Amino acid sequence: MDQTYLMNLLDQVAEGKMSSGEAMEQLKELPFQDLGFAKLDQHRNIRTGYPETIYCEGKTPEQAAAIFARLNANNSNILGTRASAEIFEKVRETVPEAVYHPAARVITVKKDQKLLTDKVIAVITAGTSDIPVAEEAAITAETMGNPVDRIFDVGVAGIHRLFDKLPRIRSANVVIVVAGMEGALASVVGGLVDKPVIAVPTSVGYGASFGGISALLTMLNSCAAGIAVVNIDNGFGAGYLASNINRL
Amino acid sequence: MDQTYLMNLLDQVAEGKMSSGEAMEQLKELPFQDLGFAKLDQHRNIRTGYPETIYCEGKTPEQAAAIFARLNANNSNILGTRASAEIFEKVRETVPEAVYHPAARVITVKKDQKLLTDKVIAVITAGTSDIPVAEEAAITAETMGNPVDRIFDVGVAGIHRLFDKLPRIRSANVVIVVAGMEGALASVVGGLVDKPVIAVPTSVGYGASFGGISALLTMLNSCAAGIAVVNIDNGFGAGYLASNINRL
Amino acid sequence: MDQTYLMNLLDQVAEGKMSSGEAMEQLKELPFQDLGFAKLDQHRNIRTGYPETIYCEGKTPEQAAAIFARLNANNSNILGTRASAEIFEKVRETVPEAVYHPAARVITVKKDQKLLTDKVIAVITAGTSDIPVAEEAAITAETMGNPVDRIFDVGVAGIHRLFDKLPRIRSANVVIVVAGMEGALASVVGGLVDKPVIAVPTSVGYGASFGGISALLTMLNSCAAGIAVVNIDNGFGAGYLASNINRL
Amino acid sequence: MDQTYLMNLLDQVAEGKMSSGEAMEQLKELPFQDLGFAKLDQHRNIRTGYPETIYCEGKTPEQAAAIFARLNANNSNILGTRASAEIFEKVRETVPEAVYHPAARVITVKKDQKLLTDKVIAVITAGTSDIPVAEEAAITAETMGNPVDRIFDVGVAGIHRLFDKLPRIRSANVVIVVAGMEGALASVVGGLVDKPVIAVPTSVGYGASFGGISALLTMLNSCAAGIAVVNIDNGFGAGYLASNINRL
Amino acid sequence: MDQTYLMNLLDQVAEGKMSSGEAMEQLKELPFQDLGFAKLDQHRNIRTGYPETIYCEGKTPEQAAAIFARLNANNSNILGTRASAEIFEKVRETVPEAVYHPAARVITVKKDQKLLTDKVIAVITAGTSDIPVAEEAAITAETMGNPVDRIFDVGVAGIHRLFDKLPRIRSANVVIVVAGMEGALASVVGGLVDKPVIAVPTSVGYGASFGGISALLTMLNSCAAGIAVVNIDNGFGAGYLASNINRL
Amino acid sequence: MDQTYLMNLLDQVAEGKMSSGEAMEQLKELPFQDLGFAKLDQHRNIRTGYPETIYCEGKTPEQAAAIFARLNANNSNILGTRASAEIFEKVRETVPEAVYHPAARVITVKKDQKLLTDKVIAVITAGTSDIPVAEEAAITAETMGNPVDRIFDVGVAGIHRLFDKLPRIRSANVVIVVAGMEGALASVVGGLVDKPVIAVPTSVGYGASFGGISALLTMLNSCAAGIAVVNIDNGFGAGYLASNINRL
Amino acid sequence: MDQTYLMNLLDQVAEGKMSSGEAMEQLKELPFQDLGFAKLDQHRNIRTGYPETIYCEGKTPEQAAAIFARLNANNSNILGTRASAEIFEKVRETVPEAVYHPAARVITVKKDQKLLTDKVIAVITAGTSDIPVAEEAAITAETMGNPVDRIFDVGVAGIHRLFDKLPRIRSANVVIVVAGMEGALASVVGGLVDKPVIAVPTSVGYGASFGGISALLTMLNSCAAGIAVVNIDNGFGAGYLASNINRL
Amino acid sequence: MDQTYLMNLLDQVAEGKMSSGEAMEQLKELPFQDLGFAKLDQHRNIRTGYPETIYCEGKTPEQAAAIFARLNANNSNILGTRASAEIFEKVRETVPEAVYHPAARVITVKKDQKLLTDKVIAVITAGTSDIPVAEEAAITAETMGNPVDRIFDVGVAGIHRLFDKLPRIRSANVVIVVAGMEGALASVVGGLVDKPVIAVPTSVGYGASFGGISALLTMLNSCAAGIAVVNIDNGFGAGYLASNINRL
Repeated sequence: MDQTYLMNLLDQVAEGKMSSGEAMEQLKELPFQDLGFAKLDQHRNIRTGYPETIYCEGKTPEQAAAIFARLNANNSNILGTRASAEIFEKVRETVPEAVYHPAARVITVKKDQKLLTDKVIAVITAGTSDIPVAEEAAITAETMGNPVDRIFDVGVAGIHRLFDKLPRIRSANVVIVVAGMEGALASVVGGLVDKPVIAVPTSVGYGASFGGISALLTMLNSCAAGIAVVNIDNGFGAGYLASNINRL
Repeated sequence: MDQTYLMNLLDQVAEGKMSSGEAMEQLKELPFQDLGFAKLDQHRNIRTGYPETIYCEGKTPEQAAAIFARLNANNSNILGTRASAEIFEKVRETVPEAVYHPAARVITVKKDQKLLTDKVIAVITAGTSDIPVAEEAAITAETMGNPVDRIFDVGVAGIHRLFDKLPRIRSANVVIVVAGMEGALASVVGGLVDKPVIAVPTSVGYGASFGGISALLTMLNSCAAGIAVVNIDNGFGAGYLASNINRL
Repeated sequence: MDQTYLMNLLDQVAEGKMSSGEAMEQLKELPFQDLGFAKLDQHRNIRTGYPETIYCEGKTPEQAAAIFARLNANNSNILGTRASAEIFEKVRETVPEAVYHPAARVITVKKDQKLLTDKVIAVITAGTSDIPVAEEAAITAETMGNPVDRIFDVGVAGIHRLFDKLPRIRSANVVIVVAGMEGALASVVGGLVDKPVIAVPTSVGYGASFGGISALLTMLNSCAAGIAVVNIDNGFGAGYLASNINRL
Repeated sequence: MDQTYLMNLLDQVAEGKMSSGEAMEQLKELPFQDLGFAKLDQHRNIRTGYPETIYCEGKTPEQAAAIFARLNANNSNILGTRASAEIFEKVRETVPEAVYHPAARVITVKKDQKLLTDKVIAVITAGTSDIPVAEEAAITAETMGNPVDRIFDVGVAGIHRLFDKLPRIRSANVVIVVAGMEGALASVVGGLVDKPVIAVPTSVGYGASFGGISALLTMLNSCAAGIAVVNIDNGFGAGYLASNINRL
Repeated sequence: MDQTYLMNLLDQVAEGKMSSGEAMEQLKELPFQDLGFAKLDQHRNIRTGYPETIYCEGKTPEQAAAIFARLNANNSNILGTRASAEIFEKVRETVPEAVYHPAARVITVKKDQKLLTDKVIAVITAGTSDIPVAEEAAITAETMGNPVDRIFDVGVAGIHRLFDKLPRIRSANVVIVVAGMEGALASVVGGLVDKPVIAVPTSVGYGASFGGISALLTMLNSCAAGIAVVNIDNGFGAGYLASNINRL
Repeated sequence: MDQTYLMNLLDQVAEGKMSSGEAMEQLKELPFQDLGFAKLDQHRNIRTGYPETIYCEGKTPEQAAAIFARLNANNSNILGTRASAEIFEKVRETVPEAVYHPAARVITVKKDQKLLTDKVIAVITAGTSDIPVAEEAAITAETMGNPVDRIFDVGVAGIHRLFDKLPRIRSANVVIVVAGMEGALASVVGGLVDKPVIAVPTSVGYGASFGGISALLTMLNSCAAGIAVVNIDNGFGAGYLASNINRL
Repeated sequence: MDQTYLMNLLDQVAEGKMSSGEAMEQLKELPFQDLGFAKLDQHRNIRTGYPETIYCEGKTPEQAAAIFARLNANNSNILGTRASAEIFEKVRETVPEAVYHPAARVITVKKDQKLLTDKVIAVITAGTSDIPVAEEAAITAETMGNPVDRIFDVGVAGIHRLFDKLPRIRSANVVIVVAGMEGALASVVGGLVDKPVIAVPTSVGYGASFGGISALLTMLNSCAAGIAVVNIDNGFGAGYLASNINRL
Repeated sequence: MDQTYLMNLLDQVAEGKMSSGEAMEQLKELPFQDLGFAKLDQHRNIRTGYPETIYCEGKTPEQAAAIFARLNANNSNILGTRASAEIFEKVRETVPEAVYHPAARVITVKKDQKLLTDKVIAVITAGTSDIPVAEEAAITAETMGNPVDRIFDVGVAGIHRLFDKLPRIRSANVVIVVAGMEGALASVVGGLVDKPVIAVPTSVGYGASFGGISALLTMLNSCAAGIAVVNIDNGFGAGYLASNINRL
């Protein structure tokens, strides 16, 4: 039920064309969601700059391309995650301005290029194998209007590499730490900065890393206080959360 | 926002005391739930005969007794699960008609004793150690107005005991199977009856039974089609579900 | 031992052609199942409308087709689950009236098209990726003679979509909730309806969803009382159970 | 090595009392950390308002009291988590201004009572059993200078209770969701607000809740984007993280 | 239905007191189990020498004593496992000839003391902490009429102790290996003897032994062919299985 | 050191060609295993009829064929498990009498065809998908000289099928039960026979069957006493163990 | 069979008192272990300085004291691990020189106080709660004759504390790192030193630390090369291994 | 900041060209790592003979070859682990002296062929399937300048094979034990030698070996004291650790 309908109904009562009892009956019979959830959805309208997001895994190139085409009619940026090169080939047939980021396996369509803040989100990784997940986080944050500083391959086994970058890390407003294997980087960074730290375990590793469980447990049990953890390999979630924090 | 408020508002519009625009503004500012969820809650009122339920674990006797006292002012039956004898002692100080079922660790206050159906729910167990969970299920179902047939200690290691009771099991409308250890009884019963079967794994067992996980997995993977599984030791959930089915 | 044999034996005793002692010896030597399990099997004959079911996974197209051909000689509907397109190609060579449902990966042969009830089973999903499992459930229920209402993609992250469909969900007699990832939809629906709710966890998700374990645990631990859980991705089991309940 | 020492050394060189070669030797022999990590520690000094924190579990009352007494000489607030009543009895002998919060099992010593921000952190729980963890989060946030809005017992099984509080939840700057059992509340809240959501799984539940694993997995796999997860029962971590975010 | 009843029925037919049709009707109406499972139960009668077994865990001393008293009226040996000293105190009030084996926590009542075979069952343990489980196995086997050779504390960390006993081990007909921690003894013994080896993992150990899981997995994955595994700490099951094998 | 060498040495001492001191030195320097383990190995020689066994998985066809060719020079039967058709093609180039059993993925070379016993090993399965593992067990037992009775597809969901075969099962000396999914068949059979029962969990199933863990746990926790369990899908181990038992 | 016996036998052959054939028969009949394993045990005699070790957990004070008294007759040091104060009270009644280390729960009896090496073993912990395990390691190493340098509470959340001690850590010959929670300290230390690092996960932590599993996985998956891991809380094993390495 | 820079600065102060205050400002502004971590990195320079290591998994042949080419400009040996034949083909285009070890999947470039010690590292395996991991360990140790003795296929199921090699094993300075399935070899070897033992679990096995978890747990729980465990299949880590120990 949109507000026009409600206004009409009130007008009819005001004009005596409908009794208040009749109006009451109509209002009672209306599915509640038409009353209540119009309001629920309003809050989405004020989330300016939020991209439309498509999780491409498990979709055919045709299905993915169709969704991109439909969303492209709106003004929002578009972010397609877990997208194969095949999907991208199909997408750009109808959305030529789409851009593919192969490391992150992300497709972006940016309509609004301006930054919404000048506060930086740092995205750091323990190893080079963690970069795809880190790129997913970084591109997500960028598509949502944040400046991103990428600091890769600074794992704790060679801790001087990390300290070398500490001034850059400390100057960020939010820090995303991406690490597989034992995931110790999150704890070390968490002890060195006083900004929100978001830890992303990756499935990088072998043997008893169990597809990311080892890093996940490390991050959940971190001795450094106040680290936020997201799901294994969930670069998108980390970037989204970091952006939500960065906008406050 | 109750309907009286809404009626008053419509009356004011009808009487010209308030313009339709002003009414619109008021409606827009109302928290939506006052409109919508009045309706949401209505469906609870038609659930006649549903008991009020209190999960007593982790509550002090005083806390539990206070809740019983408050609910006792209503007309519903009351069901307190996972209740210790200590809690019961405190409860019956203020609710003398409360009854304690020590095996099931359940407290009941029955105001409406009549059966809502004559269709029987059979509650069967593999061993004698499964009886407490079975009793929780049985009393839950009885408190919700169902006749219950208890058939205990008919595990598959001595399958003739089960077949001995098969006519009674088959004459039930819904069957609850309670079993720990390897939980095979659920599969055997599921293959012998064509009524809905609800399987309750119990934490009875030792070694690799892992507190009920073995029985839980057995029941989820049953080769007999269409078995409903609830949480380990969740007699209440099984009784509630069985009652929901039995009333259809 | 069919009853004719038993009758003949009794006749011979009655006619004095066989002593009661000789008859006793014969009866003792008969495998008991020929006496007892004739009765066991009788109950299957009254399950009118139950389809013959074939679990196709792990069978070659030739094996599957042979089974379809053999069952096709009976009057029952046939339901083949987890069937690949290759299997279907082979099946329809000998059973031309077979129909393939590619999303559900189900083959049906319907001989008895009439509904056995007008009570509706609602099948709802959290996301679009859950639809294959939901379709398996829906087609199973339909093949067993139930009307089905499909309500897809109403996950809790955009809860207004769910509430929009609530009247339809509430008007169903049994509700099947299909959800992967965190599976929270089952709890929310369980709190909103007072009919039996069957929850199907799916293996949709990544990272710490562990192939459906996350959703499975969510559903088993639901704070909403009386939710029935089946195995991960077990659409068939949910449809079968729902039909069993719907026929009561 | 503090800067005074370094300044003295440079002065001596400048004054010719020490050759540059001798100074070089002294600098080389200094443990590097005295040079480098003086800087490392500087960042701690600017964390004004951060409380000193003591994890009391596993400490004797005497040990805990001694630490409180020592820290009490500083100007910081003090926060003791997982503290028993016995520990508190001992602590207040030497720190009479210490306050005990029994539900949260937290001891606070507040020297700086002023709020550092007027942005609110909402702390909401699914059930009443989750309140102790929620209180740990709330008191942590308050001790760090944040206003907190407590909204308890709004689990998804009775979702109208949640919607009733939605305006309060939405007006917060950061939202902490505390839930055990299946933990579905985090997903529902995550879909309804556009502020950072921190999810705290609790060990509340039984059977297949596995001491909080079920809720933990639910939160990690949430279909709502951008939810931060902390360890099971880690109210302190959630409050600390929320405060870090709220101060940005 | 016992055979007397069936004989009577046939006699009545033979004598013309009942028509064959009437007899047929009676037979059809009899619950099948009365026909079939008379036979099912017959096999129990030939299991001469099998003890009656009582799993005492979770029973009160009174309950356990009552069962002992009732079984004591029969001629079978009685075996009570997982029995506390308190239970034994109560049992011997009514069954004075009961004997308690405190290490094994077993109560035995032996009426038939003769050995049913002279083939030996060897029961060997890795360490001294495994002895209680080994004793449960040994006493079970003895109560079932087997001679037992106990060989304790011959774990692989000092493998010369094992080889010292090899001639005794090899002269046994069946070998039970009881081991906790890493359970490697089963593999070594399995490679040295060509008789059936039954492996019993125990919950002895700490850290990553996980209450016996480590030893259980070791035994299931043994590189020595043909090792039988029973549940963690299941001395009774091992003794029972060994006796079943030893009697062949 | 073979005995000839030792005899020669003693002869030299007896003949005065070597002093006892020199002989002592030689004996001391001999690796002890040459003394001790000659005896260790003797026991292998008396294991007449044991096949040589080759685990083919992970070997190239060339490697496997080379091992077959080498072993073929001996008089033992040969058993190659987990062998692909490709491996068999290569093997029979050099060992033409080799036979391939495709369901079991086993290659046999039988030189000694006679049965070593007339006692039967029954191999029974719950479903048709369990047959490959059952065949591996059956062929292993046959190659080791045992008569085998195959009884397939008698799972507990249609328990009359099992009872139909009960006389055959009971007449066996050892029973192997092969079952996936929930594995309940082992418990039911264990309760119906008084011979040793060997349970083989299979990886057949989906969802929460976890590649055989569900069936494995069921079998370990069986309420029927004295069931021997082997590793998941370990048909070879079950056949080997059954043969070891059957020969006693 | 000791060498005297063998020498006598050879002498008899040399002297013609025994034929070489008779000697051969005697040698053949000797249990092999008497030949071979005399040698096996010799290597123990050269392990000078190794303490006798008693794992006290699960032993009664009387049992433990008896073992101490018996071992005290030898010249070796004695090390009793996991010893309660009650056990110590009993032990010192008969072994007055026994010393109790309450934090480590270790009893030592030192007869040989001299250091066997001047190379230092560093034992470092992440937190104060890890000290008991660290003390077990340190005292084990000391009892085995190694100098130990204890460096406690240098976890990565405040990494400057670690760097402050780095010169001491680097000057050690072997480094033991003891850490619970997320165990990240092992990786950081492993990256900073080029000596063998032994990592001991502790069960310190809560929630998803799962009794030490989190730290264990972290250490197994360490990105720093060549870290040795021992069991959870296994301070003794770490000290023993470190000593074995330190003596090389 | 290298020391030249620091010396220049001090010289300027000494010469009066810069005030001590100005120098102080410069020192304060220098990134601390330039001061501190110069020292940190110095320790790397003294690790003569350490190879540069490249983990090739997940890298394209081009990426791997580029890294080899760059490192080849230095004087260190190079070790590429988990390298496919494809990667090697590409690497040797630019580094013709590279050698491929196909079993170990390792590429080596040796510039310094001399042994740094004559103490031997023994690498032993339980089965032939464990050889690839063992070779990775052996080649790693060799590339780091250690002599290696390979002793393969001496698993405990035929323990005489192990004892046959015991003198060689005992003469080694460090022992690496590589075993899959149940991993019992590590315990047996640990009990037979008094040198450091490094255990490497492999993913060899099936069923309940769970990709190496069974062997891993066995090794962590070994009853033989002081066994060092590394990650599943981590031959490189074992070789690296053994070399670190062997050089002491």
